[in-house]
Amino acid sequence: MAAPSDEEGAVGSRCHHHTMAMLDVPFLPFCAFLGTLGLLCVAMVGTWCQHWRGGFSLDGSSRTFNWHPVLMVAGLVVLYGAAALVYRIPNTWSGPKLPWKVLHGSLALGAFVLSVLGLVAVFRFHNAQGTPNMYSLHSWMGLATVLLFSCQWAAGFGAFLLPWAPAWLRALYKPIHVFFGSTILLLSVASCLSGINEKLFFSLKNGTMEYKLLPAEAVFANTLGLLILIFGVLVVAALARPSWKRPDSDSPESRQ
Amino acid sequence: MAAPSDEEGAVGSRCHHHTMAMLDVPFLPFCAFLGTLGLLCVAMVGTWCQHWRGGFSLDGSSRTFNWHPVLMVAGLVVLYGAAALVYRIPNTWSGPKLPWKVLHGSLALGAFVLSVLGLVAVFRFHNAQGTPNMYSLHSWMGLATVLLFSCQWAAGFGAFLLPWAPAWLRALYKPIHVFFGSTILLLSVASCLSGINEKLFFSLKNGTMEYKLLPAEAVFANTLGLLILIFGVLVVAALARPSWKRPDSDSPESRQ
Repeated sequence: MAAPSDEEGAVGSRCHHHTMAMLDVPFLPFCAFLGTLGLLCVAMVGTWCQHWRGGFSLDGSSRTFNWHPVLMVAGLVVLYGAAALVYRIPNTWSGPKLPWKVLHGSLALGAFVLSVLGLVAVFRFHNAQGTPNMYSLHSWMGLATVLLFSCQWAAGFGAFLLPWAPAWLRALYKPIHVFFGSTILLLSVASCLSGINEKLFFSLKNGTMEYKLLPAEAVFANTLGLLILIFGVLVVAALARPSWKRPDSDSPESRQ
Repeated sequence: MAAPSDEEGAVGSRCHHHTMAMLDVPFLPFCAFLGTLGLLCVAMVGTWCQHWRGGFSLDGSSRTFNWHPVLMVAGLVVLYGAAALVYRIPNTWSGPKLPWKVLHGSLALGAFVLSVLGLVAVFRFHNAQGTPNMYSLHSWMGLATVLLFSCQWAAGFGAFLLPWAPAWLRALYKPIHVFFGSTILLLSVASCLSGINEKLFFSLKNGTMEYKLLPAEAVFANTLGLLILIFGVLVVAALARPSWKRPDSDSPESRQ
């Protein structure tokens, strides 16, 4: 390809910057949209369990199981997403970093506690019903996700909140922590979707309510699955967007 | 935190570079490992369908369905992953770019053709059995993945292989293409895992072969699911690794 003349180059560059500026959504409105979408996901999973699956209890019945999807979506997807986005808030880029680190770690800890309670709900239900635990691919993937999350939280706490880690170790671990931050969120989303799919096959198997006849519950829960997927992809896209990152966050010196 | 003295800084920096060098796996051996893992996934999904699910045919029976998981894993995960990694091969960084673009586009087209054939297999099986199509969340997510992939391929072809796209449009679209490249692979992996989970619930429901009793087939297919997951995460990690990217690939001028 011939190199463009100076004039063509200038026009191309103007067009480019103009189009870039049009696409440059500000972070906070996008975040408000994401928050609304996240709350919608939690409201929908709660509605599904309340309206079609009999509501909630602690008696070991399927109404105990119903806490599982609600706690997993609220903790491992929505609250986790909020924790991941803390450092994209422009206010965090100046002034002391410690309060924001504490906020990031606390939100992540809240997400972790909800997800452990979500596991307790399903184990309690299985044990009360005499159903074996941990046999399906959904359970293997979901437990691997929560285990990875616990390692991520402990390593992040040790490296970034405790004062003893040397600067070179923080610099070395930071891109790994960032990478697993997005990866664990996508594993959570994948686990939620396989879980919703599995639950619908379990629950919808009689006559006119069969899953394959797409009753209202199936359309509702499939839509919930797609909204969870869109939420996860948008959070990961927001994390990856260069103009929303802390300035110089890629330089090995920025952690000091 | 007090700024480190010059001497501490120098020691920290030496340690940092030393540890970074230890972690700096070369790309080609990593790629050979990934290729082996990808082939293992294809061999395992083939073995599952051949050994436990009755093998392959084109007669509309469940042996026609068996092409679906094999083609999806081979196309939408393994061949797709190979296509995504083309620009990480150091040989592609100098000399004419067009042959590498053609290779990237051709591998992606091959992956797309295999995934369409995979869809044909499941639609043909459903139609022959009188089963409705497109009711489960797995099917919604999987079709969304293939549709996104078709848009990605067409937009990539139009922007990067046809000669008419202006440079500013290429520069604008490139980060979007790169982001969706990784996203679509992770959606494929999530679709495969929900599909394996669903298929095991369908197939293993009698007496001593129940999924929840974890017969050999269930352990084999769950392990396959985790290997597909590890393959997808490793490809995305390789794509994200800064030192394996084409030098200056982040500058808006690099596409010329």
